[in-house]
Amino acid sequence: MAAVSESPVFRATTTAPVNIAVIKYWGKRDATLNLPTNSSLSVTLSQKSLRTLTTASCSADYPAADELTLNGKPQDIQSSKRTLACLASLRAHRQELESADSSLPKLSSFPLRIVSENNFPTAAGLASSAAGFAALVRAVADLYKLPQSPKELSKIARQGSGSACRSLMGGYVAWRGGDLADGSDSLAEEVASQSHWPEMRALILVVSAEKKDVPSTTGMQTTVATSELFATRANAVVPARMTAIEKAIHDRDFPTFAEITMRDSNGFHATCLDSWPPIFYMNDVSRAAVRLVHDINNLVGRTVAAYTFDAGPNAVIYYLEKDSALVAGTFKAILGTSLEGWSGPFYEPLKDITTSGVALDQVDSRAVDVLKTGLSRVILTGVGEGPISVEEHLVGEKGEILSRQ
Amino acid sequence: MAAVSESPVFRATTTAPVNIAVIKYWGKRDATLNLPTNSSLSVTLSQKSLRTLTTASCSADYPAADELTLNGKPQDIQSSKRTLACLASLRAHRQELESADSSLPKLSSFPLRIVSENNFPTAAGLASSAAGFAALVRAVADLYKLPQSPKELSKIARQGSGSACRSLMGGYVAWRGGDLADGSDSLAEEVASQSHWPEMRALILVVSAEKKDVPSTTGMQTTVATSELFATRANAVVPARMTAIEKAIHDRDFPTFAEITMRDSNGFHATCLDSWPPIFYMNDVSRAAVRLVHDINNLVGRTVAAYTFDAGPNAVIYYLEKDSALVAGTFKAILGTSLEGWSGPFYEPLKDITTSGVALDQVDSRAVDVLKTGLSRVILTGVGEGPISVEEHLVGEKGEILSRQ
Repeated sequence: MAAVSESPVFRATTTAPVNIAVIKYWGKRDATLNLPTNSSLSVTLSQKSLRTLTTASCSADYPAADELTLNGKPQDIQSSKRTLACLASLRAHRQELESADSSLPKLSSFPLRIVSENNFPTAAGLASSAAGFAALVRAVADLYKLPQSPKELSKIARQGSGSACRSLMGGYVAWRGGDLADGSDSLAEEVASQSHWPEMRALILVVSAEKKDVPSTTGMQTTVATSELFATRANAVVPARMTAIEKAIHDRDFPTFAEITMRDSNGFHATCLDSWPPIFYMNDVSRAAVRLVHDINNLVGRTVAAYTFDAGPNAVIYYLEKDSALVAGTFKAILGTSLEGWSGPFYEPLKDITTSGVALDQVDSRAVDVLKTGLSRVILTGVGEGPISVEEHLVGEKGEILSRQ
Repeated sequence: MAAVSESPVFRATTTAPVNIAVIKYWGKRDATLNLPTNSSLSVTLSQKSLRTLTTASCSADYPAADELTLNGKPQDIQSSKRTLACLASLRAHRQELESADSSLPKLSSFPLRIVSENNFPTAAGLASSAAGFAALVRAVADLYKLPQSPKELSKIARQGSGSACRSLMGGYVAWRGGDLADGSDSLAEEVASQSHWPEMRALILVVSAEKKDVPSTTGMQTTVATSELFATRANAVVPARMTAIEKAIHDRDFPTFAEITMRDSNGFHATCLDSWPPIFYMNDVSRAAVRLVHDINNLVGRTVAAYTFDAGPNAVIYYLEKDSALVAGTFKAILGTSLEGWSGPFYEPLKDITTSGVALDQVDSRAVDVLKTGLSRVILTGVGEGPISVEEHLVGEKGEILSRQ
């Protein structure tokens, strides 16, 4: 337990969402500033399912070194250059305010105590760093009462974790890769709000640990340095897809959105495979999900589902609310409801569904078998809003660390 | 049994080898003439392990329609445009001879009876069409006593099956893609003979049927038409690799040969994955083989093994005779000798090896487990020579069909 403070403790608490890209970020043009080789685009997922809750606090009485606690575990932030970079930028913005108005408390000079908790198990294999850094930046910005817009703050979050910049906004968010060497034009912006196309749903299929492939020990810089196909992706393929998918989102054109999403996921994993040594994230369970989505789309006769895979085997399947029975209903029929995750606010339209959305004897039986035995849980969610300021603080009035868990 | 002939029966019999590409052929610029989008290069495998045996015969007394029997089964050659194209070209060359020398028997006017047998099980999943068409073209050319060189004949075999053109020669064989619309410059040529670099060995890991992935129903034309990365591969990546791997073969530089081989296999499968809909040939067993080869190379401290995958999950692992213990010895230790295939002429250097070439506790245990349960057989072979004229005819002196099996 951290020392209790006698001086006032200033606090601000926010939630931040997870986002799942439909145009993938893969490759940095500047590793220090986290500048990407190409623009990317994501759907912000609802915080009813997945969220990070972060309280930023500061006090003149806190011990001199900034503190960060994640999921109950104190972190060594001095060894995290990325966290230090975010905090330094936020403090600099606070100092500007304090210089302009001497009546303001000198929060920028106080040590910080930041406490953060995820409401989803780390075992789920979901990239939590995006939500984590977005929440950290939003909470400290709120604590400091910074006037900067989410777009401006996204440049700070980007330095923590590239994809974190997209978690500062809700709905459909583009990360403009930018051209400038200092990264000042590399930021996130909302392409469309959640309310523009609120019917987007996401079914996350979490691959069981025992079915996971041999892990990849390499990363995106290997691809940039070695894949002979990568430059074509970054320079030619992705820019065209960005334009096309933004139009599809504006037009609420799901079939186009879906095809671009699937092709971009496949193209991203293709450049991983083309890396040296090769990088594999998808495994036989992932491919069974791919097969099933194509089978569902073919059987329905229109594109009702789209898969996408990040740097791991878990599938995220996008579909529209109206097609819940066809898409999620089919997966429910195949997987059975004993699997963890068939519950929660997004389960409502599926609760009474007892039959598959498409004829199960028409889909690939091998893919069905592989999926049945290869998943540990599902997560039902949908498009959601950006960070939300809340009063459920994880730091008490005296600076003590609380827990919501 | 076909009718017995009273007139003379003319016969010629040849064997032809399988070849496994190290620079992959994938994509046609002309589907009728089988002209490829890029050049390719293969190693001809020894006929001590794998071969097709084909007898071409003709007689004035044969029934009017040409006949073809493959592995004991009569084929409908009228429905095989590719076979008809090969036979028409061969007959045209024979007619030229007969026109120039009226003393020659008019074999071009006689019906053909062709009988062919593979010495390897079709269940092994090895592409037998290359050896099959090479044997057919070589046998009929021998029957007709055509003066054309293997290079000239390769243009005919190419029309049967693209990669068949590379099975008309031994050693290391390039298929020059060519530029001309009529295909007259699209032909195979020997880059180096078997005797230039006879130490090349190949270990084929045959994936068990029950571990095979959901089969792909699509093919190379899907990739050409839809992959946005494919043009870069065909136009830029492969030409540079062709030059580099030919030099590596001339220099007997195995590490360079190996890296190019592995990268080209990965790049080929990357363009498959980038196709729409995506095409998957490698599965979790294939990836375990990839992982193990990288582990062996890392543990040995030099590149002693190279994997390559055709349009299926089976791995072909190239290595040099001197590294048999390190490479094949490690696979022998992992797989155990109860698996079919640890025998034959290429087993000699492995017979007395009872320990793994590298420390098995240093390689990925997951990859080992996946391989142990995922293979049905191995095939031990090595670089070999081109078609060989033999006297073991599959058609008797009276035209009757014989069998070697």
